Amino acid sequence: MKASQYTGAEKMEYREVALPEVREDEIRIRIAYCGICGTDLHIFKGHMDARVQRPRTVGHEASGTVAAVGKNVTGFAVGDKVTVRPLDNCGSCNTCRAGFTHICEKLRFLGIETDGGFAEYWTVPARLVHHLPENISLKLAALVEPLAVACHDVRRGRISAGEYVVVNGGGPIGMLAALCARSAGARVTICEINKTRLAFAEKLGFATANPMTEDVVAKVRQETGGSGADAVFEVSGSEPGAKIMTELVRPRGRIIMVAIFAKPVPVDLHKFFWKELEMIGTRVYEYEDYEKAIELAGSGTLPLEELVSSVFPLEQLQEAFAYLCGTPDAMKVLIQCNEVNK
Amino acid sequence: MKASQYTGAEKMEYREVALPEVREDEIRIRIAYCGICGTDLHIFKGHMDARVQRPRTVGHEASGTVAAVGKNVTGFAVGDKVTVRPLDNCGSCNTCRAGFTHICEKLRFLGIETDGGFAEYWTVPARLVHHLPENISLKLAALVEPLAVACHDVRRGRISAGEYVVVNGGGPIGMLAALCARSAGARVTICEINKTRLAFAEKLGFATANPMTEDVVAKVRQETGGSGADAVFEVSGSEPGAKIMTELVRPRGRIIMVAIFAKPVPVDLHKFFWKELEMIGTRVYEYEDYEKAIELAGSGTLPLEELVSSVFPLEQLQEAFAYLCGTPDAMKVLIQCNEVNK
Repeated sequence: MKASQYTGAEKMEYREVALPEVREDEIRIRIAYCGICGTDLHIFKGHMDARVQRPRTVGHEASGTVAAVGKNVTGFAVGDKVTVRPLDNCGSCNTCRAGFTHICEKLRFLGIETDGGFAEYWTVPARLVHHLPENISLKLAALVEPLAVACHDVRRGRISAGEYVVVNGGGPIGMLAALCARSAGARVTICEINKTRLAFAEKLGFATANPMTEDVVAKVRQETGGSGADAVFEVSGSEPGAKIMTELVRPRGRIIMVAIFAKPVPVDLHKFFWKELEMIGTRVYEYEDYEKAIELAGSGTLPLEELVSSVFPLEQLQEAFAYLCGTPDAMKVLIQCNEVNK
Repeated sequence: MKASQYTGAEKMEYREVALPEVREDEIRIRIAYCGICGTDLHIFKGHMDARVQRPRTVGHEASGTVAAVGKNVTGFAVGDKVTVRPLDNCGSCNTCRAGFTHICEKLRFLGIETDGGFAEYWTVPARLVHHLPENISLKLAALVEPLAVACHDVRRGRISAGEYVVVNGGGPIGMLAALCARSAGARVTICEINKTRLAFAEKLGFATANPMTEDVVAKVRQETGGSGADAVFEVSGSEPGAKIMTELVRPRGRIIMVAIFAKPVPVDLHKFFWKELEMIGTRVYEYEDYEKAIELAGSGTLPLEELVSSVFPLEQLQEAFAYLCGTPDAMKVLIQCNEVNK
């Protein structure tokens, strides 16, 4: 089969690779689309070479159809529309035993620690495969993985109807978190400094705030009767983001820590004490978040089509990464790995 | 009546002051004992002059007996043993309306924003007075206020039986939090650098760890099957404390932010994401924490007597503060404000 493989910093090579056999508990998926994640971009830039062996087929935001099933697999048939929850946990560590299998202490992330979805076929453990409803397009189904991240963030943040929520950072995950929070009934303001992203957020119907041109804390307080937001999603990963988060929330408000901070940054811990704030770290997703994301994507209520900035064929994975590197305000870039009929 | 009043930095003056009248919803308490809080020490040092008018009778950790009741007050009679929950909330702000009256946005802290308990009598709103059981000594009842802080910390931290808890900082509040957590069934290690406090913690039967002489993170991991503590109480208010807290906790662990940090400090937000940590700010106490503290103090199961480092008479409040300033590893210093029979 063909795959586009990471072979070293800034190199994705389209090449013939062996089709992996399907073991008894596995499913082989004919990949339709596979999205490029921020993590894939880090890999492309060579930042994760300590973790990623080469050559490696990366990619973990995939949709497709079942091409073959292992002999112990039940509940799946060739042709079924599916997606993959790419978290292969050990089942034996304290964290797995406590039920938090998604943050397993020895987690293997499919498409990072193993080969992934930028290929014609992807063979994965059957227990990580989710059925897709017939009404969802395989193109939009490639957004289920990042949407599940957003569903997990919103669930961990206990967002409820009528709440005032600020999402700080309007990239793909911030935008999806905003959509999920709105879908849960919250009133959402997206805080961003990039004008293209601000315009996109407004096009999606969100209130916006730009900390470069206005006093966002004063604005949020004014809109919340003086007290602040019920919840703030920190998705910017920036030092100013870590500073403003404690100012934006009301007493007893929640900060949902979605971003990946490269290094420790100053945090006003006094405000945690004074306002009895809560901060909730959130990473990837659990089974139920995937099911929720599939339901939401299938419902047609989210403007997912608008989040797809561009689609490249598998043989142009190198060009797709180059496009993303040169277009920092792009949303989702998808790779089409096979011809798709439906 | 006599009171010892704060009249300016490092000055507590014993003097005759007017006995305040008892209004219709108030209770006048004949103070038996009133403890010195860390906040009182800040006031004494002149750090809080912007908030504290002078002269001011400070002190808010009081026990005593009812001396007079206002005409609308029911349920209290002269001679009743009582203590005071010194939080006078506005009842009208968003935070009060949400039920979080103890962190009211316009909170008046009795003994800081109003006159307090370093006096023969203290007149307070009846709704802030709690009955004490007959079996509790008025001396130990002066510890109910800081004990209620600890009960609130442990309740906010959702500490349950069998959990492994680290208390970082072995001052009076850290020690009380450790006692409350142990009383809730947790296995508690106190982390401290002061040798007197470490010895005291050991005398109270706690496991201890000294980050100056051992690798506390390795020790805690070793004692928890490799994963880390279920919960960490950050009571040190120090930059090293803010650094170690994210290392000490297990995936999905809780950090309970008890300390008052004077300025923002670096925090490893990546660990919040990676381990899905939770941080819970906690301040003062609610009604139920006071009732729990009274129950615990009355149960005789806590070694509260050992926490009392020294008792000074009201006229020696200046000397008591001087003693505390010169004895940084002292635990609780009480002021006796009247003769006490029982």
